[in-house]
Amino acid sequence: MKKSERYVSTGITGFDKLFQHGIPKASSVIVAGGTGSGKTNFCMQILAHHASQGKPCYFMGFEESEERLIEHMENFGWNPQKLIKSGNLKIKRFLTSEIYYYDRKRGSDIQAMMTKEIDPLLMELEPLSLADNVGFKPDFIVLDSLTAISSTFRGKEQSYRFYVERLFRFFEKIGSTTFLITETQQIPEIFSPTGVEEFLADGVIAIYNVRRGNIRKTAIEVLKMRGEKHQKKIVAMEVTDKGVKVYPNKEVFSR
Amino acid sequence: MKKSERYVSTGITGFDKLFQHGIPKASSVIVAGGTGSGKTNFCMQILAHHASQGKPCYFMGFEESEERLIEHMENFGWNPQKLIKSGNLKIKRFLTSEIYYYDRKRGSDIQAMMTKEIDPLLMELEPLSLADNVGFKPDFIVLDSLTAISSTFRGKEQSYRFYVERLFRFFEKIGSTTFLITETQQIPEIFSPTGVEEFLADGVIAIYNVRRGNIRKTAIEVLKMRGEKHQKKIVAMEVTDKGVKVYPNKEVFSR
Amino acid sequence: MKKSERYVSTGITGFDKLFQHGIPKASSVIVAGGTGSGKTNFCMQILAHHASQGKPCYFMGFEESEERLIEHMENFGWNPQKLIKSGNLKIKRFLTSEIYYYDRKRGSDIQAMMTKEIDPLLMELEPLSLADNVGFKPDFIVLDSLTAISSTFRGKEQSYRFYVERLFRFFEKIGSTTFLITETQQIPEIFSPTGVEEFLADGVIAIYNVRRGNIRKTAIEVLKMRGEKHQKKIVAMEVTDKGVKVYPNKEVFSR
Amino acid sequence: MKKSERYVSTGITGFDKLFQHGIPKASSVIVAGGTGSGKTNFCMQILAHHASQGKPCYFMGFEESEERLIEHMENFGWNPQKLIKSGNLKIKRFLTSEIYYYDRKRGSDIQAMMTKEIDPLLMELEPLSLADNVGFKPDFIVLDSLTAISSTFRGKEQSYRFYVERLFRFFEKIGSTTFLITETQQIPEIFSPTGVEEFLADGVIAIYNVRRGNIRKTAIEVLKMRGEKHQKKIVAMEVTDKGVKVYPNKEVFSR
Amino acid sequence: MKKSERYVSTGITGFDKLFQHGIPKASSVIVAGGTGSGKTNFCMQILAHHASQGKPCYFMGFEESEERLIEHMENFGWNPQKLIKSGNLKIKRFLTSEIYYYDRKRGSDIQAMMTKEIDPLLMELEPLSLADNVGFKPDFIVLDSLTAISSTFRGKEQSYRFYVERLFRFFEKIGSTTFLITETQQIPEIFSPTGVEEFLADGVIAIYNVRRGNIRKTAIEVLKMRGEKHQKKIVAMEVTDKGVKVYPNKEVFSR
Amino acid sequence: MKKSERYVSTGITGFDKLFQHGIPKASSVIVAGGTGSGKTNFCMQILAHHASQGKPCYFMGFEESEERLIEHMENFGWNPQKLIKSGNLKIKRFLTSEIYYYDRKRGSDIQAMMTKEIDPLLMELEPLSLADNVGFKPDFIVLDSLTAISSTFRGKEQSYRFYVERLFRFFEKIGSTTFLITETQQIPEIFSPTGVEEFLADGVIAIYNVRRGNIRKTAIEVLKMRGEKHQKKIVAMEVTDKGVKVYPNKEVFSR
Repeated sequence: MKKSERYVSTGITGFDKLFQHGIPKASSVIVAGGTGSGKTNFCMQILAHHASQGKPCYFMGFEESEERLIEHMENFGWNPQKLIKSGNLKIKRFLTSEIYYYDRKRGSDIQAMMTKEIDPLLMELEPLSLADNVGFKPDFIVLDSLTAISSTFRGKEQSYRFYVERLFRFFEKIGSTTFLITETQQIPEIFSPTGVEEFLADGVIAIYNVRRGNIRKTAIEVLKMRGEKHQKKIVAMEVTDKGVKVYPNKEVFSR
Repeated sequence: MKKSERYVSTGITGFDKLFQHGIPKASSVIVAGGTGSGKTNFCMQILAHHASQGKPCYFMGFEESEERLIEHMENFGWNPQKLIKSGNLKIKRFLTSEIYYYDRKRGSDIQAMMTKEIDPLLMELEPLSLADNVGFKPDFIVLDSLTAISSTFRGKEQSYRFYVERLFRFFEKIGSTTFLITETQQIPEIFSPTGVEEFLADGVIAIYNVRRGNIRKTAIEVLKMRGEKHQKKIVAMEVTDKGVKVYPNKEVFSR
Repeated sequence: MKKSERYVSTGITGFDKLFQHGIPKASSVIVAGGTGSGKTNFCMQILAHHASQGKPCYFMGFEESEERLIEHMENFGWNPQKLIKSGNLKIKRFLTSEIYYYDRKRGSDIQAMMTKEIDPLLMELEPLSLADNVGFKPDFIVLDSLTAISSTFRGKEQSYRFYVERLFRFFEKIGSTTFLITETQQIPEIFSPTGVEEFLADGVIAIYNVRRGNIRKTAIEVLKMRGEKHQKKIVAMEVTDKGVKVYPNKEVFSR
Repeated sequence: MKKSERYVSTGITGFDKLFQHGIPKASSVIVAGGTGSGKTNFCMQILAHHASQGKPCYFMGFEESEERLIEHMENFGWNPQKLIKSGNLKIKRFLTSEIYYYDRKRGSDIQAMMTKEIDPLLMELEPLSLADNVGFKPDFIVLDSLTAISSTFRGKEQSYRFYVERLFRFFEKIGSTTFLITETQQIPEIFSPTGVEEFLADGVIAIYNVRRGNIRKTAIEVLKMRGEKHQKKIVAMEVTDKGVKVYPNKEVFSR
Repeated sequence: MKKSERYVSTGITGFDKLFQHGIPKASSVIVAGGTGSGKTNFCMQILAHHASQGKPCYFMGFEESEERLIEHMENFGWNPQKLIKSGNLKIKRFLTSEIYYYDRKRGSDIQAMMTKEIDPLLMELEPLSLADNVGFKPDFIVLDSLTAISSTFRGKEQSYRFYVERLFRFFEKIGSTTFLITETQQIPEIFSPTGVEEFLADGVIAIYNVRRGNIRKTAIEVLKMRGEKHQKKIVAMEVTDKGVKVYPNKEVFSR
Repeated sequence: MKKSERYVSTGITGFDKLFQHGIPKASSVIVAGGTGSGKTNFCMQILAHHASQGKPCYFMGFEESEERLIEHMENFGWNPQKLIKSGNLKIKRFLTSEIYYYDRKRGSDIQAMMTKEIDPLLMELEPLSLADNVGFKPDFIVLDSLTAISSTFRGKEQSYRFYVERLFRFFEKIGSTTFLITETQQIPEIFSPTGVEEFLADGVIAIYNVRRGNIRKTAIEVLKMRGEKHQKKIVAMEVTDKGVKVYPNKEVFSR
């Protein structure tokens, strides 16, 4: 495999310049940020970019309805209807409880997968019934959000720990490049629901929503990307009429 | 649908100027602030504005009595009696336990809705017995407060997580533009009871009650509004004899 | 009702100037402050003022003995004995457990009122057996302190939430103007035991016990007063030989 | 009773000058400070002062042995042996579990006193079997420490709340002036084990162990004293060869 | 044994200069740092260095796949395939649950080892079934990460305490020099999952990921190394194309 | 007993100058510090000093092996082998679970000692089976660490409270001067595992590991020493080739 084939771009103006080559294919990347920071737009734009180039892309959400998401994409001029019709973009919203409870269709036992006395054989079970829902093996997945999944495990931290480990291995096994959105405070210091997921992930991208006097500025940083050299700085980001733009030479923090 | 029909104004002087078009119709918007910051006045004024234009509006509260709320509206000169008589404004106060316990009238089982072994069919149940109480489909709803609801779920965080997800989907389904008040510290950093609701909501408006030396100043910020471009700054707000006023060009934080 | 009849003064020099008219009658007002900040003196002085004008006043405490409280009033020259004899002032100390456990005299079941499977009918029960103890309907009540009551519910947060909601409605129903003392840190940031009560209350008055170098200064602020316009600043307060004095034009925080 | 008979001095040089008259007789006073701040010396000196003037004094400790305490008093030149022989000073060390478990000698049931379904009659039980141990009604009591007692109630916060309320009432009933030592951080912000005791107490004296560069300085403040006017400042304190000295005009905090 | 034989180098340019002799052989060394700080690269480089000199080395991971780890090593030009073929480097990834649950192959009972009523005989059991998996006694072990192991014990803190004590003794017994990665915040203040492991370890190396304005800088410090004198300062570290480099004379913190 | 016989020195250059006479014999002294601060070296040096003068000394550890500890002492030139052969120094490592579980040899029931329904008679039991292990009554004991013991009581805080009280009384009874190491953060603010032990102890010595820019400096302070006057300042400490040195006139904190 040629070096250029081992990396993917995001298609986000300015952002790809933060990497030497790009994001290593099949990486699991956490995208962390506060409410209103533009995490979903950021990830959706990556999918639109790749779907328009003929790659199968899958958006798995727990928050906004499919209709609303499509509306937002239209506002940015990304032609979602065309991408969906072409079969390259699939958008689906779930209920968090669908993750947690018995998966009737597939006959498997997700709840068993999360019990303490777990059988090593259960390891083979897929933590997300992906195949049924999509009908294709996606090259790119966005999961909006990992925090929504983790919230269904309240009071069952040990089960969640085992679950999340298998979730990352599952993405690894199917070979998709995956973006996992996590919901943090406006200036994230811990980048994932329990602080453990950020170590399991191959990459961590943090979006900051910084107050400067009476103005709020958005900034982005590649905090970690395994197997790839990247710039170690925090740079300006903006959500414009055409989508997200990153300014790799513009600073945000005054000190 | 024309673009102008897809957005609603608030009718609050100065505040609507923070948006390019307005608040997207049918959005769920969190209004977060500390005690005495003017959250209820802010939301009530939006209802008075739309009710006076013939739109059905519904205020669901857990705190002040209907009489008191009407008195406050009279003080601001909003003619609540006329709005109520016209059938466009409905104000009702609940007990938080009415949310939590068995709903006798409708024969449904809200408590079942919150149990762990939840049946997907129960998803169809309405988390608020809205229809019975109003007699009309409101275009605008104010819920005062989401924090009051969440407090009834103490020690049952997982149930609350499922409940709140369905509550947001319920508002989505009926198509009302909804304002959910959340009770925070004087300078909010987390904008909702468990920090999860702010990610489920389409919009977050934060009201700050800032101490400057010996003076307390109020400020407001649109932190997030899905599907709409808005100004990213914190501006002055005041509660005057005529109601809430926002000064989109007046700064509050000195740095 | 004339406007002037809809508000009450406190009779505390300087403090009433912070309001446009006064405290709306029948309000529930939280008075928050640290140990030694003068909360009890502040509230007792309001009672003494109104009792001396022939209004029935009731002090419900959990801390100091009746004898001691009367002694302090005498020190300030408020003639407590005369006020008590006239029947306008009643002072009574309870044990916190009297709130919590079975109320034998009245035959009602307060504990049932706090159980989870609460019956809507129980809503009618009075959370405080007020009538038995006083023999009159007080115009003014001081509860010293709400924190003492909340502490009896440790580990039963959900029950407390239901209880406190009904407590506020009870005060609302009997129409007394009520001052609920809450015990906070020296510079309060949360103004009530669980942070929820301050949203249920109609008003919040905060007393600050600020260290300036080696000196401790006391300051007071009206943080919230529903249905009334008030000054939004923090001003000096002092406990003198004659009682509490507030200096509405004297600043305490240097920045 | 003459005014001068209603107050007691501490006999500590400089400290009594912080009060207008002194500490009101029969008060319960919390003495709060960090490890090594001199709390025990401070309280023991008060007892030595009054015992040498013929008043019955009682030191109830949970930490140092009687021998050690006597040794320290000798070091300061307070003649403990003579005071003990005269019958005016009694020093006794307990095990914390003696507080908590069944009191065999008296036949009473302390544990019952702490159960949830408490009977109002039990209110009459004495929370400390004082009489048996002393043989006299002390005018002054030092309890070293309230924190030691509270630590035996770990995980039983509600029981402790009821216990501590009755403890303060017990001291009130027997009419002793009581000093209750509490163990805090070096610069106390909360002055008692659960933050509740400081509101039940009549007085709070805080000892600060402040680091100034590489030097540690001790300071003292009367934070609260019900029924008595006191200076509101933080002043220097020192433990010398002759005991504790307070400098009412010497400042410690530079700002 | 000669002095030079009692210590090992790391082979990391600049880092070995922080020690007088090196790391004492058979030490257990914690390597603490935030996500993206380069902990795994740092440790892998030590293994590559020693494996290339003919020492048996073992990498035990819970996060990245073997393939990915090998890929990263190739990127740095460390010839992993050759080292593995030579039998000197072994890389193996586990599931955290394999640590926690019954070890079928060896017939031992790891779960029993962790129960409360532990039998002293069980102390002899090996907490990691090392021998089976490697086929050689490693001179160097990297465990990536100790945090992953600790996370499997959520809610069983006492068991973990006993487990981790035996884990350290196990490494001590087999005489390997062991590097245990711990996952911390970006600027670690506690260096291990429960704050206890750092006291059991012989050495603690902390990696800091410091934000300076808009730039992120990496720094490293030897915080502790039992039985060896080391420099007590924080110096710059960089991950270059050739691997980790440490600059023992370059400062990072401005003050 | 002569005054000079009532105190002991530590033998650590510079440190003894912080006291008027020395540490009162038979004191229990907490030595608190972060990882790598030199707590164990500090205490071991005291034992070496006294053992070389013919006093029986006992090191009870839970962390490093006996061999390693002896090695470190050799590095400092303290002749551990000679001291051990003379019978004056005994070093022994325990497993924390040996503290917690049934003590077979002595036939006593340590676990019973820690149960809630404790019998006062059990108070007589020795919390450490010291005699069996040493064969002599030590004049000096080092316990490395009290934190290790406390960690075995996780989730049994009340039992620990009773245990630790008896542990201090046990050391008091046998009359040894005891140094109890506690493991804290790098700049300790709480000096013992639960914050209670520091009040039970007769003395508290705190070791600070302070970062000054890019350099780490060590400092030491006597925070408390009952029955002895000591300097109240924080002074420099260093671990040299010959052991610990304290510089009583060298400052570390710049302000």
